[in-house]
Amino acid sequence: MRLSRFFAWLALVSSTALAQPATPASPQADTVNRFFAEALARGQAYDQLRALVSQNPGRLSGSKSLERAVVWSERLLRSMRLDRIYKQEVMVPHWSRGSRESVRLLPSRGTATTLTATALGGSGASPATGAIGEVIEVRSLDELASLGRERIAGKIVFFNRPLDPALYHPGLAYVGAADQRNRGPAAAADLGAIGALTRSLTHAKDDIPHTGNTRFPPATPRIPAAALSTLAADRLSTALTSDPSLQVEIKIHAQTLPDALSHNVIGEIRGSEFPDEIILVGGHLDSWDIAPGAPDDGAGVVQSIEVLRLFQALGIKPRHTLRCVLFTNEENGLAGATAYAVAAKASGQRHLFAIESDGGGFAPRGFDLGSTQGDAHLRAQRWQPLFAPWGLTEFRKGGAGADVAPLMIQGVTVAEIVSDSQRYFDYHHSARDTLDQVNPRELHLGAAALAALVWLVDTEGL
Amino acid sequence: MRLSRFFAWLALVSSTALAQPATPASPQADTVNRFFAEALARGQAYDQLRALVSQNPGRLSGSKSLERAVVWSERLLRSMRLDRIYKQEVMVPHWSRGSRESVRLLPSRGTATTLTATALGGSGASPATGAIGEVIEVRSLDELASLGRERIAGKIVFFNRPLDPALYHPGLAYVGAADQRNRGPAAAADLGAIGALTRSLTHAKDDIPHTGNTRFPPATPRIPAAALSTLAADRLSTALTSDPSLQVEIKIHAQTLPDALSHNVIGEIRGSEFPDEIILVGGHLDSWDIAPGAPDDGAGVVQSIEVLRLFQALGIKPRHTLRCVLFTNEENGLAGATAYAVAAKASGQRHLFAIESDGGGFAPRGFDLGSTQGDAHLRAQRWQPLFAPWGLTEFRKGGAGADVAPLMIQGVTVAEIVSDSQRYFDYHHSARDTLDQVNPRELHLGAAALAALVWLVDTEGL
Repeated sequence: MRLSRFFAWLALVSSTALAQPATPASPQADTVNRFFAEALARGQAYDQLRALVSQNPGRLSGSKSLERAVVWSERLLRSMRLDRIYKQEVMVPHWSRGSRESVRLLPSRGTATTLTATALGGSGASPATGAIGEVIEVRSLDELASLGRERIAGKIVFFNRPLDPALYHPGLAYVGAADQRNRGPAAAADLGAIGALTRSLTHAKDDIPHTGNTRFPPATPRIPAAALSTLAADRLSTALTSDPSLQVEIKIHAQTLPDALSHNVIGEIRGSEFPDEIILVGGHLDSWDIAPGAPDDGAGVVQSIEVLRLFQALGIKPRHTLRCVLFTNEENGLAGATAYAVAAKASGQRHLFAIESDGGGFAPRGFDLGSTQGDAHLRAQRWQPLFAPWGLTEFRKGGAGADVAPLMIQGVTVAEIVSDSQRYFDYHHSARDTLDQVNPRELHLGAAALAALVWLVDTEGL
Repeated sequence: MRLSRFFAWLALVSSTALAQPATPASPQADTVNRFFAEALARGQAYDQLRALVSQNPGRLSGSKSLERAVVWSERLLRSMRLDRIYKQEVMVPHWSRGSRESVRLLPSRGTATTLTATALGGSGASPATGAIGEVIEVRSLDELASLGRERIAGKIVFFNRPLDPALYHPGLAYVGAADQRNRGPAAAADLGAIGALTRSLTHAKDDIPHTGNTRFPPATPRIPAAALSTLAADRLSTALTSDPSLQVEIKIHAQTLPDALSHNVIGEIRGSEFPDEIILVGGHLDSWDIAPGAPDDGAGVVQSIEVLRLFQALGIKPRHTLRCVLFTNEENGLAGATAYAVAAKASGQRHLFAIESDGGGFAPRGFDLGSTQGDAHLRAQRWQPLFAPWGLTEFRKGGAGADVAPLMIQGVTVAEIVSDSQRYFDYHHSARDTLDQVNPRELHLGAAALAALVWLVDTEGL
């Protein structure tokens, strides 16, 4: 793009497209605009994210890195002169990957080659010599069931249905394929399979494997289960076409250890009028072990902290208590969210509103709002003109993110910020979940959007 | 983000947010949706972009790389069985950077250190031993003028006004700072300066310098002029505070050579009803010499080619002639656009509509539309419900991109696709203008949006 004098002239005569801001002037719009301008000009979330993910990558439940992040975030909140900072103890699952896994393709003739793979969270261990077997490729759990124990026993099941690329919302494609990872290995084990492979849940065509949780009911053998990169999955599928009796060797050294102690970290600005009525904003501190945890969900953590800073920077004292909650164990258990909801119910405090950021910190597009008591998103749409000049136009009915969903069950109106999600699953649960996927301006726009919505709910209710 | 069974249940009971597509069913919506689904599922633009920027990076006017890209793109169009492929000869400016430039900070005491910099396009050469002088830091051309010849003669002028971070639209911040790069060096030269430095026109705080064109009127001495990375600019500014008499040495070996022969590359699908009425979609083939030219504007090139492919893939024969134009020399002269517009006027053909893609290939948000004859954007807004399910909601009045602006002067309704621009100036005119900044899904959504808008104009007019 070149902006010549010629174009400058054209811009002068005809462009209103970039006018800023286009909100109708009002004291309300003025405050909303100040949240955004402050975040864009002096936002601290990105620098905090850099510190979080460089000092404490791979914050899986049970890890030292997660508990270091607990200490880091508590210290950060203490530096902010809030009214109250505290932790909630939570017992969390402790699955450990152990030494590095490997998946190898053993052709009928020729040399073994490595297939890029990562053990799924919850995977069992293989025998020390590896789980070795022929491979049955399926596209669905139904197809698996139709094959039956006779075809599956002693084999390795390979779930290879890709995400539907034609859907606009990557999350919808993810949900449409995730049963393979979530329930596939257990379903295979129930039919006697000795191992399971799943195609990584991503649109990206690359050699990066994406992990995630898989569940084994107590009575089901916890077989070794790994995700292949999409390129490795294509390679295995192609190899099976010409060599159906090839074998695969899976070596996984994972352990499921006793539950470990972790913490939700909480900071508050006390409400000036209604200190026992809570507006919550939060993200989750934990991440997958192989991921730095920048988009998922370091971004949500630092945005939530930035919301408190923005209120301070603008000199706005909230009427209700503004509470930032950094949840533990979102990825493989939701123990943090569950413990928080139990404590909230017991506290006698009322939660007015709870909003979560867990969408990667990309350019904010709007909000999903959910409530068991009506259409919160329709009521929130009156604020759309305040947000549209900053790129947020969507106020949708949603089911809420995982960490505030337990509050929704209790009757709280909940929400999640909607960020542009086209890139999200390229990085999700993988080693590419890095700082450089996050753009500072996009991150800070999201923090401002959260703060502005919280302020609107605080001042006039939802 | 974890999608547990719990969340799946919630999604089931309450989420309509991800419903797809939300367009009212109609034959028109059906075709629009097919453009998007085809592009997402089988789009070829990203693979073509990889080829373009890996084989022909740094496609500055006058370079061999640009003419190789002309051959590459003509060959690609020929492989598509279009109705007509041809080139337009265009004489383009030929500025050459020569051997690598350097900018060094020479403190009053101590060791010289390098400041990360890149010569501006159009810069003059320094003496072989370098232009060496004291530095006058200014924030604006007005401040420069107020200092006058006495303070400036023999010095190096350093323009250091940053982009305004608080504006939502990065393009607006860019326009607000670009006078320093466009006109600053010439203004300094007119006051006797021996060199000029400008702060890179980016929000990014990093050590990557961003080039771009600077203009010297014929009577003005063509002094050496370079852009500093934002970190280098901050360093120089800080150093000047403690050591105002420090010197800077600029070595630039640039040459302005005689104009060179280049080409616009054009491919067409002939209109079935109105072959002499043209709908144009285009991007520009050239890029800055230091840039691979992926977002700017390889993305626009391959999206424009993909528009033709999408019509073919859907089996849609346009009523008007659908013309893809790959412009040369957008970055430093607009000779390609000018030559195209002159030829268009002489041809006797009528241009119905001309749309350009030069916004980086990021997630599409809508369209800017411009016309000398009324409010094209208001008329186009009737189509907003067709695009909203695919993330495009903005139909704004705009001044058109640089390459179609000369057609607007002739009375043609013009447009530009609007992409999310928060990241754009992080990469613009720099070595970071690389393939990995472009996301395949975002790129293909943009191509589909262009195709769908073109199809709507073709079938029912604007």
